[in-house]
Amino acid sequence: MSTRFTPRIEEILSYYRGQNPGSLTNLARLLTHGRLGGTGRLVILPVDQGFEHGPARSFAPNPPSYDPRYHVQLAIDAGCNAYAAPLGFIEAIAADYAGQIPLILKLNNHDVLQDEKDPLGARSGSVQDALRLGCSAIGYTIYPGTADRRLQYTEFADLCAEAKSVGLAVVLWAYPRGGGLSKEGETGLDVTAYSAQIAAQLGAHIIKVKLPSAHLEQAAAAKIYESTSIPRDTLTERVSHVIQSAFNGRRIVIFSGGALNTDRDALLDEARAIYAGGGFGSIMGRNVFQRPRDEALALLNDVMSILEGK
Amino acid sequence: MSTRFTPRIEEILSYYRGQNPGSLTNLARLLTHGRLGGTGRLVILPVDQGFEHGPARSFAPNPPSYDPRYHVQLAIDAGCNAYAAPLGFIEAIAADYAGQIPLILKLNNHDVLQDEKDPLGARSGSVQDALRLGCSAIGYTIYPGTADRRLQYTEFADLCAEAKSVGLAVVLWAYPRGGGLSKEGETGLDVTAYSAQIAAQLGAHIIKVKLPSAHLEQAAAAKIYESTSIPRDTLTERVSHVIQSAFNGRRIVIFSGGALNTDRDALLDEARAIYAGGGFGSIMGRNVFQRPRDEALALLNDVMSILEGK
Amino acid sequence: MSTRFTPRIEEILSYYRGQNPGSLTNLARLLTHGRLGGTGRLVILPVDQGFEHGPARSFAPNPPSYDPRYHVQLAIDAGCNAYAAPLGFIEAIAADYAGQIPLILKLNNHDVLQDEKDPLGARSGSVQDALRLGCSAIGYTIYPGTADRRLQYTEFADLCAEAKSVGLAVVLWAYPRGGGLSKEGETGLDVTAYSAQIAAQLGAHIIKVKLPSAHLEQAAAAKIYESTSIPRDTLTERVSHVIQSAFNGRRIVIFSGGALNTDRDALLDEARAIYAGGGFGSIMGRNVFQRPRDEALALLNDVMSILEGK
Amino acid sequence: MSTRFTPRIEEILSYYRGQNPGSLTNLARLLTHGRLGGTGRLVILPVDQGFEHGPARSFAPNPPSYDPRYHVQLAIDAGCNAYAAPLGFIEAIAADYAGQIPLILKLNNHDVLQDEKDPLGARSGSVQDALRLGCSAIGYTIYPGTADRRLQYTEFADLCAEAKSVGLAVVLWAYPRGGGLSKEGETGLDVTAYSAQIAAQLGAHIIKVKLPSAHLEQAAAAKIYESTSIPRDTLTERVSHVIQSAFNGRRIVIFSGGALNTDRDALLDEARAIYAGGGFGSIMGRNVFQRPRDEALALLNDVMSILEGK
Amino acid sequence: MSTRFTPRIEEILSYYRGQNPGSLTNLARLLTHGRLGGTGRLVILPVDQGFEHGPARSFAPNPPSYDPRYHVQLAIDAGCNAYAAPLGFIEAIAADYAGQIPLILKLNNHDVLQDEKDPLGARSGSVQDALRLGCSAIGYTIYPGTADRRLQYTEFADLCAEAKSVGLAVVLWAYPRGGGLSKEGETGLDVTAYSAQIAAQLGAHIIKVKLPSAHLEQAAAAKIYESTSIPRDTLTERVSHVIQSAFNGRRIVIFSGGALNTDRDALLDEARAIYAGGGFGSIMGRNVFQRPRDEALALLNDVMSILEGK
Repeated sequence: MSTRFTPRIEEILSYYRGQNPGSLTNLARLLTHGRLGGTGRLVILPVDQGFEHGPARSFAPNPPSYDPRYHVQLAIDAGCNAYAAPLGFIEAIAADYAGQIPLILKLNNHDVLQDEKDPLGARSGSVQDALRLGCSAIGYTIYPGTADRRLQYTEFADLCAEAKSVGLAVVLWAYPRGGGLSKEGETGLDVTAYSAQIAAQLGAHIIKVKLPSAHLEQAAAAKIYESTSIPRDTLTERVSHVIQSAFNGRRIVIFSGGALNTDRDALLDEARAIYAGGGFGSIMGRNVFQRPRDEALALLNDVMSILEGK
Repeated sequence: MSTRFTPRIEEILSYYRGQNPGSLTNLARLLTHGRLGGTGRLVILPVDQGFEHGPARSFAPNPPSYDPRYHVQLAIDAGCNAYAAPLGFIEAIAADYAGQIPLILKLNNHDVLQDEKDPLGARSGSVQDALRLGCSAIGYTIYPGTADRRLQYTEFADLCAEAKSVGLAVVLWAYPRGGGLSKEGETGLDVTAYSAQIAAQLGAHIIKVKLPSAHLEQAAAAKIYESTSIPRDTLTERVSHVIQSAFNGRRIVIFSGGALNTDRDALLDEARAIYAGGGFGSIMGRNVFQRPRDEALALLNDVMSILEGK
Repeated sequence: MSTRFTPRIEEILSYYRGQNPGSLTNLARLLTHGRLGGTGRLVILPVDQGFEHGPARSFAPNPPSYDPRYHVQLAIDAGCNAYAAPLGFIEAIAADYAGQIPLILKLNNHDVLQDEKDPLGARSGSVQDALRLGCSAIGYTIYPGTADRRLQYTEFADLCAEAKSVGLAVVLWAYPRGGGLSKEGETGLDVTAYSAQIAAQLGAHIIKVKLPSAHLEQAAAAKIYESTSIPRDTLTERVSHVIQSAFNGRRIVIFSGGALNTDRDALLDEARAIYAGGGFGSIMGRNVFQRPRDEALALLNDVMSILEGK
Repeated sequence: MSTRFTPRIEEILSYYRGQNPGSLTNLARLLTHGRLGGTGRLVILPVDQGFEHGPARSFAPNPPSYDPRYHVQLAIDAGCNAYAAPLGFIEAIAADYAGQIPLILKLNNHDVLQDEKDPLGARSGSVQDALRLGCSAIGYTIYPGTADRRLQYTEFADLCAEAKSVGLAVVLWAYPRGGGLSKEGETGLDVTAYSAQIAAQLGAHIIKVKLPSAHLEQAAAAKIYESTSIPRDTLTERVSHVIQSAFNGRRIVIFSGGALNTDRDALLDEARAIYAGGGFGSIMGRNVFQRPRDEALALLNDVMSILEGK
Repeated sequence: MSTRFTPRIEEILSYYRGQNPGSLTNLARLLTHGRLGGTGRLVILPVDQGFEHGPARSFAPNPPSYDPRYHVQLAIDAGCNAYAAPLGFIEAIAADYAGQIPLILKLNNHDVLQDEKDPLGARSGSVQDALRLGCSAIGYTIYPGTADRRLQYTEFADLCAEAKSVGLAVVLWAYPRGGGLSKEGETGLDVTAYSAQIAAQLGAHIIKVKLPSAHLEQAAAAKIYESTSIPRDTLTERVSHVIQSAFNGRRIVIFSGGALNTDRDALLDEARAIYAGGGFGSIMGRNVFQRPRDEALALLNDVMSILEGK
């Protein structure tokens, strides 16, 4: 038997044994592309903020980023593992950049044109779109905690099964939201770990969560965290707990950077915690594309160095 | 005609006469696998608490249980009849454990990230998933008493019919919930028996309910229980009434153990009541996998001895 | 042309001219089976109370009736035209009793685990289930007057069309319910006649309503009943008006017996009124199976004698 | 090229150029059948009141009308262009009257068993039903102004497209209803004209509205009616405006008679206004079938004479 | 390689590289038809006001416009690039005007017969309708900001994908509406730019928005507009920002004229701003067809001259 991949990649792929060879192939593409290819770590550039927050809030700080070509080129030049975006941004570049970097088509999106206690995104693309555009994976966002989350879970379940049946990889963003959670609770450690578990149980290949705070939101969970003394003082410990919560490290979990405009040193500290805690990588959007291109490339370079263990 | 099975298994299978041979085959697999195989009794290990309660509340008391392989290995080593879990946990082990133990794919799940008076689970898998993963059965949970239960009943009806048409067995969890029931009423004898009846009428092959208390919830029912003097003082009597309520013993009904952290002696007493009352077995989750592995194996060993009539 | 059937059966079948021969065949089976076969009258045994009211309220008064075989055997021994039940009860006997009596699969059901002002049943089976189980007809219940009745009417319309396309007969239970009706109004003559009309317009072959009281519920209707002097003092007159309201006698309308525990003489009086008013028969559930078997057989014997005109 | 039809029929058919020949054929059948055949005017007998208002309110004033055969025979004897009814009434006569008069299957219906501010009908039949029953057209009712009218518009859009694809004609009843309209507004000229326009834009071949009053309901519309001096004092003027509002006379618009129990002279005056205003005809239900048959035939005779221009 | 088109058309088509040749063909038809053909600018005549506002408010100011032929003839005579209308208006002219001008079938519509805080249109046609009627494109309207906008986004996503798969072009009207927006906010610059971004991300080929005011609606956006000094004092600057917000000029964005009854000089000033700001053109409805035909032709002539850069 040939051994094309590094031992770490072989190990990660072994977690997904039983999946279609097509999905394994696309997972391998994501894991072996770019500067971190083969390390088992990933840095993905996602750009859906134009839809999620509006164009000016997203792109005005760095006007070249209004152009859809800007982002995919940045992802390529920085050596990212993949580039993720909604249908419009992917369609705008898929032909010209065909084959240059793995693409992830975000299949649902949400805008902020109305305040909502229990938001729900809108499906805005399809698995068929991902195939025709040459993507390696679909992406989807769930809001664990929102009132009608069952609609999202079921929609995702169906898209996930369809994607797997045609050999795509599946990336799931899990962002706790909704009437039952406090603002602080949305990034609380218990809620973040719970969301990672839900995402894993829903069958996602790759899970994206936010970096968790030490806050505990749910009384029933807090009791266990206290009684079993789960360490949560450092970000590294919290990353480690989230990784544990997603099948004990047997699912790829990546973390989004901190809040917008987090300063560079803080971002690098976060990357160090992701690395040390066993996180599989980082998915950085606004903190990258809102910086001038040179600064963005430098930041991504440093993040990748950290994730390479240097 | 060959007689491969024990008389009790032949009898149980006769209750399902007219079903597809494929479904009978998978029912036979569940009934003949493991240490209790052939006795007509079952012990099933279900692990959906990661989704239902969160990972820390489920696995932190026994950290090896964060790993999806832990549970299926435990089920195999204990000699359980089957292992039941949501999509993620099954996908994580299906290839490596193919053919070692009958698998039950839970097709819907519910989290507790928002308090809900009338909860509804989310369909998170499909009959097609069960087939591709080599499962013997699908599982589904209804909440008799929740406001929109008709959505669940109809979704189950369709999944059940589809599963039967492709030769799978069908397991239905019936957990009374919802705005019309008091907390005590959720395990009341009348409500438990009613839920078992609903599950049987919906066409489930195997029905899972909680062990009932002597409480009677509904006035109209209580009147009959009193006037017809249905015995309900002992747990054995109550198990017996639930079995009677599910087609007079002609449907397989299994019972979940008591509340979390029930002590070992209490659990064994419950097993004795299940046995004596004619229950078909036990489905034990948290009370098993949250114990250290040795204790869990010992507990399951003792439960199985009781169910063997020893 | 051969004349296999009695003139009355030929006449009744002529009301359905233009329907598929398959549906006519199954209608003929219902009309020619059992002791009343050929008279144009029917007595059907329906047993869905386990689902609708719970097992103890239904079966505890006569414990052998917990067993699904009890009912179909009772229907056969009494010489009923057909036996109707939900999926679980039919599946439990279909193979063993194949071909012994026409079966009607009730395709939707409702439980009483939550009080509801505007109830809606759940579809719990399919036309395909009816076919695979060898049934002659599907059954369905509408609640004319419930807020979302349009969901029921449309679901029934689709099931009815599908059943007709595969040659089944279609039985529709019309039980007025919902926020716009008083308790008394649910069995008022105007509302009962209106429900029979709706059922006929929806395309049902056989319509089941409750025996109406002399109460008039809706002011606009009451005005007409008064101005046109529709007789309604006796039950016979009221039966006659309901028959008239269902296409002037050109649709089969059968009536359920009175309230639970109606005494035997009252039940026989009701049968006399059904006969005299031109009703097509009786559908008796609880008043039959909650009696000891001998009493039940005797009661059905007497009802059938009345419907034979003896 | 052969000229089978009168110039007026040729002209009307030219308005539908581009439609499937099947639909044109059925439109031609409606326009050329009966006493008014070839004049470009129509009188249609619709009988859905049994469902919409209940049997006693509909048929008790003229008891023979409880029989479904009564109506189609009346329509034939009077020389109507077509007969329209819900599924039950059509199924009850389709075989015996096959080919004797064009049939219109009403595909949705609504009962009055609950008061509703924003009513919605229920789809109670299908295009496939219309085909198997030999109908020339489907009928559907929208309630412009009801809160969820978009559900109706979209359901109609799909049924309309399906009907056209199989060569049926499409008749749309447009009855303004709902929380945003006053009782008076439901027949106001602006609202009636608006409803006719909506029906035409939705693609209906034939549009049925009520005769409008001079009332103007919507302030924004009233301003234009005043500023552009749209004549609306006489019924003729109002009919003319509605015809103009439905593609300037290039869609067939027919009008229902006045309120129930309108006296004969008033009905004939209405027919004169329809004729003079360029209306395509009249659709008369209760005012016809609630009269004794002789009176009904006489009334229809007189209406048709008026619509013939005599 | 042949170069059939002008360099500007080649450039615009290059933005859509990767789309089906069928869709590119129809985009090219829209861009090369009429007087502005080849300039990269478009003027489209849309007439859906009969449905959206009612016939009198739309057509009474210029009565010949009640006739569906009026509009398509006007669009042809004025040299417009395309004519857009709902199903009824397109069906009424598609056969007689086949091939004379590109047609856009509006697939959803909304009436104003009930005041709604959070409106939703109704799908009133299909992609299949567009094909059978010889259209070059489908049109659809979203209301960014309305509560259930996710239903619209997903419906559009599916129609858009279907249209692309059969080689049609896709035009998306983005009209901010709903409970979260003030009246002024519906045309605010931030909200307009956001809507254009959403439309682009949803995959529309051509986007239609209203001309924006200088108002900023959302606090989070306003902060960025201020901090990054986005120019917005002149209409030209605002048009330019919207174009930038739709993929930096790489999606065709056209603008509707100002409010109804805007005077001629103001309309021409708006056209100048569209031209100067890099807008792709203008979509003018009421301001055209409510003028007498000669005035309308003169106005369109002047607008086109401006968009030609004369």
